[in-house]
Amino acid sequence: MIETPPLVDQHCRGVLRTELGIATFEAQLIRSAGPPAPGTTFFDTQTGFAVRRWCPPLLGLEPHCPPARYLARRRELGTAESTRRLLRGSGTGAYLLDTGAPGDLTGPKELALAGDAEAFEVARLELLAEQAADTSGTVAAFLANLAGALHHAASGAVGFACGARTGCAAALAADPAPPGPGEVRAAAGRWLARRTRGAELRDPVLLRHLVWSALASGLPLQLPTGGADPEPLGGFARATAGLGARLVLGGGYPYHRQTARLAAEHPHVHADLGPALARTGARAGAVLAELLELAPFGKLLYSSGGRNLPELHAVGALVFREALGRVLGGWVAEGAWSWQDAQRVAGMLAAGNARRVYRLDERG
Amino acid sequence: MIETPPLVDQHCRGVLRTELGIATFEAQLIRSAGPPAPGTTFFDTQTGFAVRRWCPPLLGLEPHCPPARYLARRRELGTAESTRRLLRGSGTGAYLLDTGAPGDLTGPKELALAGDAEAFEVARLELLAEQAADTSGTVAAFLANLAGALHHAASGAVGFACGARTGCAAALAADPAPPGPGEVRAAAGRWLARRTRGAELRDPVLLRHLVWSALASGLPLQLPTGGADPEPLGGFARATAGLGARLVLGGGYPYHRQTARLAAEHPHVHADLGPALARTGARAGAVLAELLELAPFGKLLYSSGGRNLPELHAVGALVFREALGRVLGGWVAEGAWSWQDAQRVAGMLAAGNARRVYRLDERG
Amino acid sequence: MIETPPLVDQHCRGVLRTELGIATFEAQLIRSAGPPAPGTTFFDTQTGFAVRRWCPPLLGLEPHCPPARYLARRRELGTAESTRRLLRGSGTGAYLLDTGAPGDLTGPKELALAGDAEAFEVARLELLAEQAADTSGTVAAFLANLAGALHHAASGAVGFACGARTGCAAALAADPAPPGPGEVRAAAGRWLARRTRGAELRDPVLLRHLVWSALASGLPLQLPTGGADPEPLGGFARATAGLGARLVLGGGYPYHRQTARLAAEHPHVHADLGPALARTGARAGAVLAELLELAPFGKLLYSSGGRNLPELHAVGALVFREALGRVLGGWVAEGAWSWQDAQRVAGMLAAGNARRVYRLDERG
Repeated sequence: MIETPPLVDQHCRGVLRTELGIATFEAQLIRSAGPPAPGTTFFDTQTGFAVRRWCPPLLGLEPHCPPARYLARRRELGTAESTRRLLRGSGTGAYLLDTGAPGDLTGPKELALAGDAEAFEVARLELLAEQAADTSGTVAAFLANLAGALHHAASGAVGFACGARTGCAAALAADPAPPGPGEVRAAAGRWLARRTRGAELRDPVLLRHLVWSALASGLPLQLPTGGADPEPLGGFARATAGLGARLVLGGGYPYHRQTARLAAEHPHVHADLGPALARTGARAGAVLAELLELAPFGKLLYSSGGRNLPELHAVGALVFREALGRVLGGWVAEGAWSWQDAQRVAGMLAAGNARRVYRLDERG
Repeated sequence: MIETPPLVDQHCRGVLRTELGIATFEAQLIRSAGPPAPGTTFFDTQTGFAVRRWCPPLLGLEPHCPPARYLARRRELGTAESTRRLLRGSGTGAYLLDTGAPGDLTGPKELALAGDAEAFEVARLELLAEQAADTSGTVAAFLANLAGALHHAASGAVGFACGARTGCAAALAADPAPPGPGEVRAAAGRWLARRTRGAELRDPVLLRHLVWSALASGLPLQLPTGGADPEPLGGFARATAGLGARLVLGGGYPYHRQTARLAAEHPHVHADLGPALARTGARAGAVLAELLELAPFGKLLYSSGGRNLPELHAVGALVFREALGRVLGGWVAEGAWSWQDAQRVAGMLAAGNARRVYRLDERG
Repeated sequence: MIETPPLVDQHCRGVLRTELGIATFEAQLIRSAGPPAPGTTFFDTQTGFAVRRWCPPLLGLEPHCPPARYLARRRELGTAESTRRLLRGSGTGAYLLDTGAPGDLTGPKELALAGDAEAFEVARLELLAEQAADTSGTVAAFLANLAGALHHAASGAVGFACGARTGCAAALAADPAPPGPGEVRAAAGRWLARRTRGAELRDPVLLRHLVWSALASGLPLQLPTGGADPEPLGGFARATAGLGARLVLGGGYPYHRQTARLAAEHPHVHADLGPALARTGARAGAVLAELLELAPFGKLLYSSGGRNLPELHAVGALVFREALGRVLGGWVAEGAWSWQDAQRVAGMLAAGNARRVYRLDERG
């Protein structure tokens, strides 16, 4: 038996406070360009099956009960109580919350209270730029306000993050170097002139400026790859080596083996297990094992990738814990690993690596 | 024990009616640019081993008997009787037959009779164009005849298919939009002037015209990816969303996880299990499990990919059925899935999804 | 139980003769752009764990003992005796040694003596060019000396190899054809004028010239892909078909399934198992199974990829042997393969394929 300490969930978002009908609930289960095809449902996915396996018992029901019955029970208990039970049943000791997500979501304090856990903030770079733009009349004011916002965020947050859909990783792959001041001013001028309030920042020059400014703060940077091959980020990894930067790449399923290789090749590159594990349910152990092929064990960090539904935070944690026990326990049973090593590596992936990379014990 | 209903083989071709020597038989086992390397044989492949495992018992021999003994028994029984036994032993209830393959192959009625099964036609788009060209003197006549042929095919077939080697997927990846009428006329003029009878259509403009014309019929389109990464088909998936089109992508091994992701992201995109499973024998369960990571379970369709040898139809079916039972049964044993869900999903992959997507129950 | 004959290690380098401190030893375990990240160690990798599992018993210690204890024992025995025990404990009967690696490494004779095995030389192409350049005053002299060196090497070596980092595969992917004589002369003139002694040859025209010259010798060519997708080498495979050439591609993890497909499609293309297995420890069986999906069993060749540390030669062999037994034994237990076939395929991968491809039995 491999035991894991309380997990550090190094990347998640808040949860919805409102009650949810079955269609809204279902729509959160997978990322799709539209509603389920006629004759199909998003419950018939690994995520749907994992939710039905792990969550009903936390609300006092049988595992695998029908979705309608589960949602009826969730309404009976109320969203707040259901959230409380789901988070507390997940075995998570700390959440690193990306606070840049849209919607009426719980913040760090509320999540910490509901989950009886610590919570830390990860500041979303694009949001800092959008907020600075909202309050700035000129390019010079925008850049000064942005610098101030980054400085302020760095004192409160444990890390920075790019959004998965803004093209940040692609911008860094295309040009890993920091843009020059004139380039930044010109890009800011163009963006401020054309942007509509609330629209996401997607300008590659400004994204690179944000990233390099964030790295200067000395905090770790979470860089999701949006499902693309992370290989082209090798140049950015080389460009940031030796500067004290710490990068945490999104696992990049189905390119997670490539991510693991980048983590092996570059001392300051780490890999987030979440994007590869959270959505694969019964297959999470197989995917985890693939990540453990090349990645040094000190470079892999657990996350749930949970967002909107506390079920996703809980399922991410419970699926991970079970997969970790199964994979490492299997290697111990085969004699490939010692039990002591397996136990130690489990603690590193579950919590220790994140505590070290984000220096959580200095924050408290 | 997971039970599966009679399979719907959503993509196969006819079988050869002639007797086969061992070299001809061997040459059908894998796709190779030439004969086996000196000192090697195509029987020493997963497909070769799977044929030797599953087919001898259907002809009254021990599993794993030597190829020469198997072929002697096949000749003894005769091609017709061997075909009958192999198809009937496969547990297949319906074949969707791509009738555009060259060679003296059985058609749908003959295959249905031999296999005691239903058979439906899938019309190959390139062949319709080649046939229209053979009987048309001018560009205008060609385009009118092609429109007529597509209309006629749509009334008899349950779907359309592109060939795997003509570059159809690459053409749609490069430009997902339908070509304009002038562009089509110009391309048709160039092609008609230069084509030699029997040569495959490879003009990207005409291929896109064929695909968009086929989609207008409302029938599903089978789009093989020829072993290339299907990711660049994302634009075509977006371009065809919301039009009532149904796409069935070839599984795209070794890019099948990317295919599964496209099936998750786009409600009208499905994935064919065949190209990923049929040639991997003892590994089919592992590959199937990878497809089941991201793909919604309502989006995966079984096929044998069988062609020329009825052994390939039989092996595709028997390998799939065993792999499905092993993978889903394993998840049930671990407690990850309920037995009822596993049973239901097995029925969807084996037959139900294909019956729904191709509306087979409306055809009878 | 699957038994394997003494292995033919078709690609390795020599080992260091000097005593090693723990930091130097650790630095050889993975390929990294720098030292381990603070708070981590390269011992916490699959390679590190595999060394700790397999090597201590060969030196009389418990498996999984701490690195410091293992290295103390290694010093106690001395480098020569440790090397002797590790190589003899690996079950390797023949080494194909790439002699073009830098450093004070054992050559074929010394390795053969230490390991009580045969050893053969594989000549590194870039090194032949560098040596010819060192002794040539003009372009004409360089090209003549190079031709002589290739001819001489072909009489002593069993094969040629490109280096993994010089860009040889990329050069062939970009232009598979042999360069013309004028092109070669111009490239040689540019390179000779600018090169600094000891710097690796990276000129794509000269690399292509080396490769095509080597193929003309009739010896097999080892072509590592440096971790890149081997798919773009399809053109080079087509260009070299039917000429009697034999190519052995590096396994190309994580693109090993693509490598296996090239080996299936092209009769003269083989795949080296080493780069995919040697660094994945407890996962080697899973990776091996992926290679066995599409590759004909006569096309896969074992190697340790060992270099500098005899531990890597030993671990490569012991991990491979265990993985092979587990994977093939599992298929026998499931009834997918017969025991006789499994035994036969094990012998092919372990030794027979390499003996045939390199014609070792004609060398003796």
